[in-house]
Amino acid sequence: MRDVAIIGVGLTKFGERWEVGLRGLMAEAGLAALQDAKISSDEVDMVYGSTMASGRFVGQEHVAAMLADQLGFNNVPATRIENACASGGSALRQGYIACASGAVDMVVVGGVEKMTDVTTSEATTALGGAGDQEWELAQGITFPGLYALMARRHMHEYGTTEEQMAAVAVKNHENGHKNKYAQYRKLITVDDVMKSKVIADPLKVLDCSPITDGAAVVVLAPLDKAKKYTDTPIKIVSSAQASDSLGLAQRESLTEIKATRIAADDAFRQAKLGRGDIDLIEVHDCFTIAEIMAMEDLGFYKKGQAAKAIADGETRLNAKLSVNTSGGLKACGHPVGATGVKQAVEVVWQLRGEAGDRQVKGAEVGMTHNVGGSGATAVVHILKRVN
Amino acid sequence: MRDVAIIGVGLTKFGERWEVGLRGLMAEAGLAALQDAKISSDEVDMVYGSTMASGRFVGQEHVAAMLADQLGFNNVPATRIENACASGGSALRQGYIACASGAVDMVVVGGVEKMTDVTTSEATTALGGAGDQEWELAQGITFPGLYALMARRHMHEYGTTEEQMAAVAVKNHENGHKNKYAQYRKLITVDDVMKSKVIADPLKVLDCSPITDGAAVVVLAPLDKAKKYTDTPIKIVSSAQASDSLGLAQRESLTEIKATRIAADDAFRQAKLGRGDIDLIEVHDCFTIAEIMAMEDLGFYKKGQAAKAIADGETRLNAKLSVNTSGGLKACGHPVGATGVKQAVEVVWQLRGEAGDRQVKGAEVGMTHNVGGSGATAVVHILKRVN
Repeated sequence: MRDVAIIGVGLTKFGERWEVGLRGLMAEAGLAALQDAKISSDEVDMVYGSTMASGRFVGQEHVAAMLADQLGFNNVPATRIENACASGGSALRQGYIACASGAVDMVVVGGVEKMTDVTTSEATTALGGAGDQEWELAQGITFPGLYALMARRHMHEYGTTEEQMAAVAVKNHENGHKNKYAQYRKLITVDDVMKSKVIADPLKVLDCSPITDGAAVVVLAPLDKAKKYTDTPIKIVSSAQASDSLGLAQRESLTEIKATRIAADDAFRQAKLGRGDIDLIEVHDCFTIAEIMAMEDLGFYKKGQAAKAIADGETRLNAKLSVNTSGGLKACGHPVGATGVKQAVEVVWQLRGEAGDRQVKGAEVGMTHNVGGSGATAVVHILKRVN
Repeated sequence: MRDVAIIGVGLTKFGERWEVGLRGLMAEAGLAALQDAKISSDEVDMVYGSTMASGRFVGQEHVAAMLADQLGFNNVPATRIENACASGGSALRQGYIACASGAVDMVVVGGVEKMTDVTTSEATTALGGAGDQEWELAQGITFPGLYALMARRHMHEYGTTEEQMAAVAVKNHENGHKNKYAQYRKLITVDDVMKSKVIADPLKVLDCSPITDGAAVVVLAPLDKAKKYTDTPIKIVSSAQASDSLGLAQRESLTEIKATRIAADDAFRQAKLGRGDIDLIEVHDCFTIAEIMAMEDLGFYKKGQAAKAIADGETRLNAKLSVNTSGGLKACGHPVGATGVKQAVEVVWQLRGEAGDRQVKGAEVGMTHNVGGSGATAVVHILKRVN
């Protein structure tokens, strides 16, 4: 297995993108990534495309072939990856393996989701396919409900409060406010979150990530060839993934995403780095409680200690550890199949020093954490500036 | 990249499986494969699962995590692959790359589709997502229509007849008749096909593969470790894939699947074998015209010459070249996400000499050919007995 670097990234504006379809979103992010990498279409050897539920959102499966087609890569192998909301991170990992194996050199990984063409009810049902459709969704529990169960148990076991959860949203909106690609750029307060509509008690609408259209694309190359294309290759120093039961009822604990813990431990082992080496993380904050659990399961805080630390401001931009500088899923938006790739785009910008108002000072090592469903898949990558 | 072998295979009965759901089908094929490989769940390092449209058929995405969960592989990386009807072949290829790279040792690749829980009309719409939803399906053309266009043009350019197409179905039913896993085990005649209901002229219902429930699973291991598990490891001597435009209108030709030609040429190059070395092939006969085109595009016949050769019996069991010994998609059935994996299962049985009444005598090298959509993806594998 050889070293692999990200040499180009591209992102669309996230939000309700009524004016463009699935293929247009792919083209927008894809062309930006090719331009950023300064490569032409015919230099690409392989394509991975990720969507979670494009079949249900817009009737289109087979989206990797569409991505290859749209970007003029005709005839290279193109493969769609789907692992629910961890589709993007999983696609990045497949691209990493293909490039690291030596099977191919240049790999394009693109994630996309066009979610706003259906009603909110239809979207909620489609997203229910990320969990156990038969034993959860069909019995009436949607994703806010699953995470509400986890939140309630976390509150019970560790004394986590609704105000502490709200603080996650407040912080992420602070960061999203500074990100021109973010769906929501407005500042909010703990009071705003607390007074917002209850979706699944104790989660309120401002505890939840939104329904979003968007796409993100990265270009991978072997590290030894990356220098030909860029002065700032970002090395993938680890790529780790784990699974767990699809349904929440089969888990050992409601307050831990075990797949996150396993993937994180593996990622740090691969990278030969410790928690203290990480300058910034994009974590999977599909709900505010998810960011609290992630900071614990990734090993940055002991169980039960993350909520207070976040509320105390430890994970704000340029505080102790900058978390979700993009605004996270909460404020930047959550086009499910694109999210894992977008996390890598944000970390690359940060490590290159191109993040503008939301730049983490002296960022050298960043991490991404992407979760599928209620934790049946977790994917963790560590990225490092090598120049 | 190291050598990889298939050390275990499992298949469900194909057909209308009213009595079992998606997870039950996975378990049935998966447990058979583990038993065949004589391994336990905890020896598995990675899982790939393929479905085309499980979200639309049964509301369930995230099926690789479900497969890992069902088979007791909890916590290993599990990733769903979707490339329309080539999902299974693409998953096999991803499993091959992961194992060949050295990233992991033992990889389980499972394909499944549960198609009969929706109406035929809903299934046809879901399958339309394999082509260009926006520019084809939404304009009214379904898959029988797309292949009818190809058939009509093939007839125009090469004088191919409806009776010759019918001969493909007759041959595949002959083989399916001998396969206890096949959906249709009845013998049919050219006259039966010609008199069957027209679906999209010139294709009649007996020119079309059916809607099928089923699952197929294979277990991969590095060749140097395979001997520990089996006396008859089947080596993957090549794994090739190519893409083309999603829509038919953008293709250079209506009578050639270019992605098949590119993947086949690559596969023969990787294997250092010629067409004459192949003892049997499972080709993607979603429609009878597709098998005719495949035999040409794979390089076994010149363009325009396969139809007559097939009608003359050259590709019957133990004739010049045995094609679709399982019964193919036509008679064995076509659970779309499982098909590419099932093709490998059939070839493994043949190369081990375990195919019973439909055994190809002295089979040493076999091939699989799996197509997504109307040809936007093609995946070709060559397998060889190495003991």
